[in-house]
Amino acid sequence: MLPVGVVGASGYSGIELVRLLLAHPHAQLMVATSQANVGRKLSDLYPQFLDSGVELVQTDIDQLTNKCQLVFLCLPHSQSAELAAALYRNGVGVIDLSADFRLDTPEPYLTYYDWQHPCPELLGQAVYGLPELHRAAIAETRLLANPGCYATGALLGLIPLFKANLKLRDIIVDSKSGVSGAGRKPELAFSVVEATESVRAYKVASHRHQPEILSQLQGIADHELRFSFTPHLMPMKRGILSTIYVQLAEDELGRDFKAIYRDFYLDEPFVRVLDEGQLPQTRSVCGTNNCHLSVVVDKAAQRLIIITALDNLLKGASGQAVQNFNLMQGFPEKMGLTSLPPLF
Amino acid sequence: MLPVGVVGASGYSGIELVRLLLAHPHAQLMVATSQANVGRKLSDLYPQFLDSGVELVQTDIDQLTNKCQLVFLCLPHSQSAELAAALYRNGVGVIDLSADFRLDTPEPYLTYYDWQHPCPELLGQAVYGLPELHRAAIAETRLLANPGCYATGALLGLIPLFKANLKLRDIIVDSKSGVSGAGRKPELAFSVVEATESVRAYKVASHRHQPEILSQLQGIADHELRFSFTPHLMPMKRGILSTIYVQLAEDELGRDFKAIYRDFYLDEPFVRVLDEGQLPQTRSVCGTNNCHLSVVVDKAAQRLIIITALDNLLKGASGQAVQNFNLMQGFPEKMGLTSLPPLF
Amino acid sequence: MLPVGVVGASGYSGIELVRLLLAHPHAQLMVATSQANVGRKLSDLYPQFLDSGVELVQTDIDQLTNKCQLVFLCLPHSQSAELAAALYRNGVGVIDLSADFRLDTPEPYLTYYDWQHPCPELLGQAVYGLPELHRAAIAETRLLANPGCYATGALLGLIPLFKANLKLRDIIVDSKSGVSGAGRKPELAFSVVEATESVRAYKVASHRHQPEILSQLQGIADHELRFSFTPHLMPMKRGILSTIYVQLAEDELGRDFKAIYRDFYLDEPFVRVLDEGQLPQTRSVCGTNNCHLSVVVDKAAQRLIIITALDNLLKGASGQAVQNFNLMQGFPEKMGLTSLPPLF
Amino acid sequence: MLPVGVVGASGYSGIELVRLLLAHPHAQLMVATSQANVGRKLSDLYPQFLDSGVELVQTDIDQLTNKCQLVFLCLPHSQSAELAAALYRNGVGVIDLSADFRLDTPEPYLTYYDWQHPCPELLGQAVYGLPELHRAAIAETRLLANPGCYATGALLGLIPLFKANLKLRDIIVDSKSGVSGAGRKPELAFSVVEATESVRAYKVASHRHQPEILSQLQGIADHELRFSFTPHLMPMKRGILSTIYVQLAEDELGRDFKAIYRDFYLDEPFVRVLDEGQLPQTRSVCGTNNCHLSVVVDKAAQRLIIITALDNLLKGASGQAVQNFNLMQGFPEKMGLTSLPPLF
Repeated sequence: MLPVGVVGASGYSGIELVRLLLAHPHAQLMVATSQANVGRKLSDLYPQFLDSGVELVQTDIDQLTNKCQLVFLCLPHSQSAELAAALYRNGVGVIDLSADFRLDTPEPYLTYYDWQHPCPELLGQAVYGLPELHRAAIAETRLLANPGCYATGALLGLIPLFKANLKLRDIIVDSKSGVSGAGRKPELAFSVVEATESVRAYKVASHRHQPEILSQLQGIADHELRFSFTPHLMPMKRGILSTIYVQLAEDELGRDFKAIYRDFYLDEPFVRVLDEGQLPQTRSVCGTNNCHLSVVVDKAAQRLIIITALDNLLKGASGQAVQNFNLMQGFPEKMGLTSLPPLF
Repeated sequence: MLPVGVVGASGYSGIELVRLLLAHPHAQLMVATSQANVGRKLSDLYPQFLDSGVELVQTDIDQLTNKCQLVFLCLPHSQSAELAAALYRNGVGVIDLSADFRLDTPEPYLTYYDWQHPCPELLGQAVYGLPELHRAAIAETRLLANPGCYATGALLGLIPLFKANLKLRDIIVDSKSGVSGAGRKPELAFSVVEATESVRAYKVASHRHQPEILSQLQGIADHELRFSFTPHLMPMKRGILSTIYVQLAEDELGRDFKAIYRDFYLDEPFVRVLDEGQLPQTRSVCGTNNCHLSVVVDKAAQRLIIITALDNLLKGASGQAVQNFNLMQGFPEKMGLTSLPPLF
Repeated sequence: MLPVGVVGASGYSGIELVRLLLAHPHAQLMVATSQANVGRKLSDLYPQFLDSGVELVQTDIDQLTNKCQLVFLCLPHSQSAELAAALYRNGVGVIDLSADFRLDTPEPYLTYYDWQHPCPELLGQAVYGLPELHRAAIAETRLLANPGCYATGALLGLIPLFKANLKLRDIIVDSKSGVSGAGRKPELAFSVVEATESVRAYKVASHRHQPEILSQLQGIADHELRFSFTPHLMPMKRGILSTIYVQLAEDELGRDFKAIYRDFYLDEPFVRVLDEGQLPQTRSVCGTNNCHLSVVVDKAAQRLIIITALDNLLKGASGQAVQNFNLMQGFPEKMGLTSLPPLF
Repeated sequence: MLPVGVVGASGYSGIELVRLLLAHPHAQLMVATSQANVGRKLSDLYPQFLDSGVELVQTDIDQLTNKCQLVFLCLPHSQSAELAAALYRNGVGVIDLSADFRLDTPEPYLTYYDWQHPCPELLGQAVYGLPELHRAAIAETRLLANPGCYATGALLGLIPLFKANLKLRDIIVDSKSGVSGAGRKPELAFSVVEATESVRAYKVASHRHQPEILSQLQGIADHELRFSFTPHLMPMKRGILSTIYVQLAEDELGRDFKAIYRDFYLDEPFVRVLDEGQLPQTRSVCGTNNCHLSVVVDKAAQRLIIITALDNLLKGASGQAVQNFNLMQGFPEKMGLTSLPPLF
């Protein structure tokens, strides 16, 4: 059993991570921290854990170092970096679910996060934890940047095309997310009264996952891109559907795009290209680490429309973190991630 | 008081129309038909009408002709055309909420609706009832084709650009709709169990509102277009949000697009261009005949992102039908359409 | 036009009141206050009011006194009393939507609200604004205590029995409310993530509407009562369904209870006893000032089961306030309360 | 591995049962039938099962007898009895999730179900599968009647009192259920448009679980009871909250009711009496086989208010069926029922 810790265990991704780790055959949860709930039983916040005995404690670097071989950080961006650096230097493995190590260089942190990165020297060492793109590097790292939820849905829809050396100059990602993506915080905008029976876009052309997606895509094929990303808030708890529009050159319209996707994802444990006639829906992947994907060729418009669906808190956060944990520790990749949730 | 009838009064657009007409100062509802509910009181289906005394009757052309000066048809597509033709020939005004007279030529009905239009000679006489585009012609017609809900949201977002003579070669409309858009029919796919907590696309690159939108756009400026339309089903009752992506030529990036929209909609009673910093949400327009609209310039991607929100059953159906009714009869355009609904 | 003011205009009952008053033929909204939003346009908070021009200002007793003949107070309990007293003494009519004048004596305010009432001398002068019980007194008062939402649903279900001189020793009210009843405040417990897909009871046997209901019932017939009230939180925005269980003496089982209810509510403009076979649902009354009611005799258990449905923000708050306003001013009772909302 | 079958695998309880059995360490799913979907892959209906390979077949008694040692029947009432009888006579174990064997005598089937029971001789042999009440008998039977969802919630709230020999003459059960309780069928009444944002009661004083509950209670203590049961439909997918009102004799008011409940459920694996200050909510038990319970003494009204929460499809159906399966086979009672679902 590998001793692990979760920092920020009371938030939505933190608590899902605790749930997965408690059921993981090779992980032992030694420490679960929550600054706002020090001394409380986890079951006071989530009665589902009545039998677990987990108690929330203060975040303490020494305790984490002494008790854990690997620590998951589920903190808001900019609150993770220094703690991650300290643990990493103490020899503890780190899986950071925040954005703090997802970008290669410190500059975009200034632009998009209005934040001076405190340990830019580590940016080059952190591995971006999208197994479908960086599996080998993930297995070798001790500092992992877990991808953003939107970024995961966008990248899984796009990397097969980039890897196939198609020239893709124009890409639009239109994403629809449940409100848990905003994190666990009391806000009128997310209340039943104000957020159900309504749909809206937000941070149009300015969301922080945009440079994250672009940075990964240009790591594969560095041609110039026109890229737009629009996130939308849906009246539901969890799930992200991304509708991706890719302009094709006329001479590439005849390629067998479904074969490209099927081949690319053939051996992937969590990505499924749906059969002809089926389209992804978030309900079918929520509660799992799966991503469902369809490709439609819109011939008249010379365009590819790719749709991906995933659970923002699992494949988009805590499930992917456990998948990365398995890869880093040499466990089977699906370990602890196979149980099917209630079907609706 | 103008005597009117509603055919198909028990469906979602039919019942909203009945509600609006009962409150309209110059309309008198003489006949409300529903083949499945002949002889029942409307209040048996919708207890909100306990005090109205409306009874549902069979659809009878003679009765409609004798009692009504104008008839609203709220029937599924292909079930409207012959009834509309008969009433029209009898001298009765017709506002058809189905798709049967929205296209200019019979061919696309074969392609998209798998249906041989029974009275193609009327297609040229029907006026497409988008007041923001065809106000003058609407005032002159006796046969009005009320626009589709998705088409209304897309066109209101695009016509100011087309009217401004911008060359727009690449357009994507990504629409998110509540389930009432599917009509009032018992289907598992729309049940609380199967449709809440989920989002999905449907009829990708093949929806019937696609030729409707294109036909109107090319009526304004007949250049070639790459056009894609993707409808999505949201876990909510009503409302459509359309996110519209328009590729710009580089030399047009500098134009003041907000001014183009503000100027175009300056005197429109129901379309509002939101202030900088605000974005439309369906909750703010549902229950009204309004369309809220924002324009964002995505400079890096040389793209315009236009977002429109409307109520699919009002500005997207019955509210717009009443607006057209007002124009056809010479009543003030907002008559019967000004009451504010509950705020959430 | 009667000049009126709304204090606390940005909350849920405040904003619904503003909406009703703006459409009221004889009211003119002179002042709308909101301490947290001084200087903002109402449309910044609720874009539905883009055309209204209402601006939110500070609460100022002099301004309210000078500009208004009647002021509606939509404040949390204990924040209303002193302002109400001041306005009342200045000769301004007051309709208070808080609990501050609903009880006859100051003692229960200590017990249930942990609050020393600052102007107990006014408790005897305030009239409890349930028109179905106190219509005549309402017409004569200048200080009106608008009933609580739960209390309205419970009392409308019970007063016909009390007025019929039935001895009712055992009463249970089991109420189910939408979350808007909790007011407009950011709380995790009311977020989409935590409050949808869940039902729970709260304040079991200790809710503050319990003494309010009891006080009114014992004003009609002062026999001893075993009375329980249990509020429940539903995953929806608005609406209250109250299921009321009344134990009957065996010799009263044969009475025609439906006739008792029908007769009592025969001339009431807003209470409807449903036909045999129909049962109330909140959807049919939300957005209106109506209360729907059914009576079922459970013979085997010697019990009456009465079910009432109303909109907590209208008949349970702002709609009833306007109804009381009409009575106080001698306007027709339904004025400004007849428009039918969207049907779903 | 014990070979099992599921008849009616495509409905809501059927599919949840399939999910649980596929993950059960000692069960092997040999046959899954669905008359409406013969020949289809289960994943066509529920894409969650893309990797399972389960195919739906016709219901065939010989095949079920040859391939299975135990068969779960997930059919509507009255469609189960004859199939159950045939399998039982063939030596196959039967767990029937319908109502067909829940009552001891055929008469109430005529009264409440309008149905002549075809094999009344088996009613005495079937064991009512509420482990908290009949654990020993369950372990010995081959014909098990799995309790109704409402009945489970009501009985778990009441049996500790009955077992404690309290005289309880007056009981009211007010239950609130998600719409999945109505089964998987296309009906307007359960659509997003008509069932969200609304609450209503149904089958007041006439629901079929009423005789089921009474029959079990009177099996414990046969005194006369005034008993009322009112089911309500909530705008959510799953979960039942039951609020139970029990009138106490004055001399029993002083007893320690919490101790009665704690003691009774001390060793139960799935029923948890919550700590003082906590109240059950359906969200905390949905996706699990747990029942959460609170007891509140309403002293003023001499009443006990007991609240239970469970998942209608798990502890109220398929989870309890697996629990019974474990007991019948001598497996540990919690086997296959311990995984925690997503937390919201």
